[in-house]
Amino acid sequence: MNIPHSDLPRVVIIGGGFAGMALARKLLKEDFQLVLLDRHNYHTFQPLLYQVSTASLEPDSIAYPLRKITRDSKKCFFRLTEVSSITAEENLIHTNIGDISYDYLVIATGSKTNFFGNESIEKNGMWMKTVPQALNIRSLILENLEQAVITDDAEKRKALLNFVIVGAGPTGVELSGAIAELRNNVVPNDYPDIDPNEMNIHLLEGLPRVLPPMSEESSKKAHRFLEELGVHIHLNTMVENYDGELVKTNTDLALKTETFIWSAGVTGAPVKGLNASAMVEKANRYEVNTFNQVNGYENIFAIGDIALMQSEEYPKGHPMVAQPAIQQGKHLAKNLKRLVKSEKLEPFDYYDKGTMATVGRNRAVVDMGKLKFGGFFAWFVWMFVHLWFLIGFRNRLVTFFNWIYNYINFDKAARLIIRPFKANKQIMEVDDDV
Amino acid sequence: MNIPHSDLPRVVIIGGGFAGMALARKLLKEDFQLVLLDRHNYHTFQPLLYQVSTASLEPDSIAYPLRKITRDSKKCFFRLTEVSSITAEENLIHTNIGDISYDYLVIATGSKTNFFGNESIEKNGMWMKTVPQALNIRSLILENLEQAVITDDAEKRKALLNFVIVGAGPTGVELSGAIAELRNNVVPNDYPDIDPNEMNIHLLEGLPRVLPPMSEESSKKAHRFLEELGVHIHLNTMVENYDGELVKTNTDLALKTETFIWSAGVTGAPVKGLNASAMVEKANRYEVNTFNQVNGYENIFAIGDIALMQSEEYPKGHPMVAQPAIQQGKHLAKNLKRLVKSEKLEPFDYYDKGTMATVGRNRAVVDMGKLKFGGFFAWFVWMFVHLWFLIGFRNRLVTFFNWIYNYINFDKAARLIIRPFKANKQIMEVDDDV
Repeated sequence: MNIPHSDLPRVVIIGGGFAGMALARKLLKEDFQLVLLDRHNYHTFQPLLYQVSTASLEPDSIAYPLRKITRDSKKCFFRLTEVSSITAEENLIHTNIGDISYDYLVIATGSKTNFFGNESIEKNGMWMKTVPQALNIRSLILENLEQAVITDDAEKRKALLNFVIVGAGPTGVELSGAIAELRNNVVPNDYPDIDPNEMNIHLLEGLPRVLPPMSEESSKKAHRFLEELGVHIHLNTMVENYDGELVKTNTDLALKTETFIWSAGVTGAPVKGLNASAMVEKANRYEVNTFNQVNGYENIFAIGDIALMQSEEYPKGHPMVAQPAIQQGKHLAKNLKRLVKSEKLEPFDYYDKGTMATVGRNRAVVDMGKLKFGGFFAWFVWMFVHLWFLIGFRNRLVTFFNWIYNYINFDKAARLIIRPFKANKQIMEVDDDV
Repeated sequence: MNIPHSDLPRVVIIGGGFAGMALARKLLKEDFQLVLLDRHNYHTFQPLLYQVSTASLEPDSIAYPLRKITRDSKKCFFRLTEVSSITAEENLIHTNIGDISYDYLVIATGSKTNFFGNESIEKNGMWMKTVPQALNIRSLILENLEQAVITDDAEKRKALLNFVIVGAGPTGVELSGAIAELRNNVVPNDYPDIDPNEMNIHLLEGLPRVLPPMSEESSKKAHRFLEELGVHIHLNTMVENYDGELVKTNTDLALKTETFIWSAGVTGAPVKGLNASAMVEKANRYEVNTFNQVNGYENIFAIGDIALMQSEEYPKGHPMVAQPAIQQGKHLAKNLKRLVKSEKLEPFDYYDKGTMATVGRNRAVVDMGKLKFGGFFAWFVWMFVHLWFLIGFRNRLVTFFNWIYNYINFDKAARLIIRPFKANKQIMEVDDDV
């Protein structure tokens, strides 16, 4: 892998997501040789992926070249690679570009989509964990509209104009809201041959309310906002099958659709090679202690979505979102510095900054401790927080400008079918994993 | 194709490039039913494609949704389709989404890459006529850099870091300059493992000077600018073969490379079905009179690159660039209005606004009639003119902002490998034609 020898202890980080990047940035200037591995050459700001899917933003606004991080230090190396396995006894990682040894290994591989074993969904559905997947959804939505215009088959037209999103967590809610905005604001202008009422957005949720991780209050508000936008919400509804044409559920509801987006769950994305005892099997996540050390290993750590740190407050581990990942990354940087100085490690303590979700323009819901609010001000807070956490000054400014433009013009500027999805389904397979 | 019947005469335009779009915009509010056909749902601003290839801009900055044009009129229809042929006797066009009849047909299909029959180049080379192709080149350049870092094979590394561009017209010159900027400004920071001197950019040209369509003076200046940037220029050099590894030429020059970009010529991209006499066979372009009427047809017109209008000043037709296309589109709009009123048509007269090319930052050359200048002021003019002609206020502003950012930071913000090219070579075949 051509990493030069160094007398400094080598930290290898697998994954440049929120956790891996937070750690890398903190260790850049410290006395470590740092090796960052990722299968993309960029960090993805996942909370805004749905805006790429719905033609509001281009990928460069929410992706950040990882070499722009590593360039700031001569002791830091980036390698574009897929890690295949770990041989912990030899402190060795195996990748498609060769092996690399480590003194400290940090696994920050995040999560992947959870199909709960339903093969029909995995085969025929779409999901949105990476930029290429988000772009595929963008192409599909626009291709469906173009196809609907020209088809004479009423049933086909209906299926093309039915958009089914499964899972009413923040991703599902935000995506449904954004597609509804597209229907309400862009379709009437762009597609005079389509009556916006023909286009239907269905949001399916297995639990009895939308945004299950949030407060009842925010949940109710989001429900109302979604209905105001014209999203059809189906609660207590579990998908049983999607054959590429028909969605079957555990209720009477059956929907014909060409667009089935699965956002109903994630599971850990571990690397092969560690002992079975390192894993919490059901969650597919590594069991870590309060120092993020993987169970059974001294020099292997896991942070972010892939780490399951049990505590009284979080018996099933922290929520698999950006904040715990960022905080664990920063915290581990401090602990690694302590470790090489043989100082006592400090336990991780999660500071919950709150949860939020946006539902179309002018509307969002925010839970911050006991404070819960929704509407225009929440939407404003949502925008501010997302701009704040976006990485890179340029990204912030381009995103900000695009938001203003889209807001004023009721427009979605990036409605370009660059890589047609339907004609190229194999791209998804080759390109990217779950 | 679901175009409603109308009592207005129907004008069908094939192609939303510079010519087709100029015509469509002028006819929108006139007494015609307008049908615009294109195989992409966006207009491509081709002069800036090389900036997409070299990670300066994202596609949304230089692409413009065609429905944003057609939305302004209820008599105007856009259809995303590939035209297969024309049956002129029946005033009928055949497409992959059905047939459509016309009263007036305007062919604005533009040009495609000319390989001059060299199959090895068509099979193994890259070219840059569309957004997906430009993105493929972006991915390839970045993938090569990533691969060079990890390879132990010195020969392989050399091939990965050799960039060969064939054809020193504006596209080849601008692309070479931009890759050289990448080498000079981004590689030293992003790739500490690569010595910028290992990375070589070779520009090959069959004629004895770069920028053959421009003045001797500008040609000389551009040559000097390219050399200052470190581009190796090989004049009087024709490529005979590229097998995917080795470039063979008619001289002693042979280059091992994994990046071979062909920008040595274009040829018309006609539609099947018209009489042989309509074509100038050698050029692959339709022979048109001064009203842009295709030879032998009353109600079929050709504009832009695909039209060959002979005149004393332009015995081989107008140059295949944006300006004649735009002017012909606008002019034909006027003539079509005259035609339905049975007024006398007016001949097209090309007003040559000049030619320009940019060579990296701060440097460009401009020919405007007898006025020829190069350097910083020319570069400024180049930027202004390109921003001016870019379509859409948002695109202008985003591009302008990205340019300022890249300029100040010596950076290329969009260096993202979204769709890896090497693992996905088939995408190019499926996606897009020449």
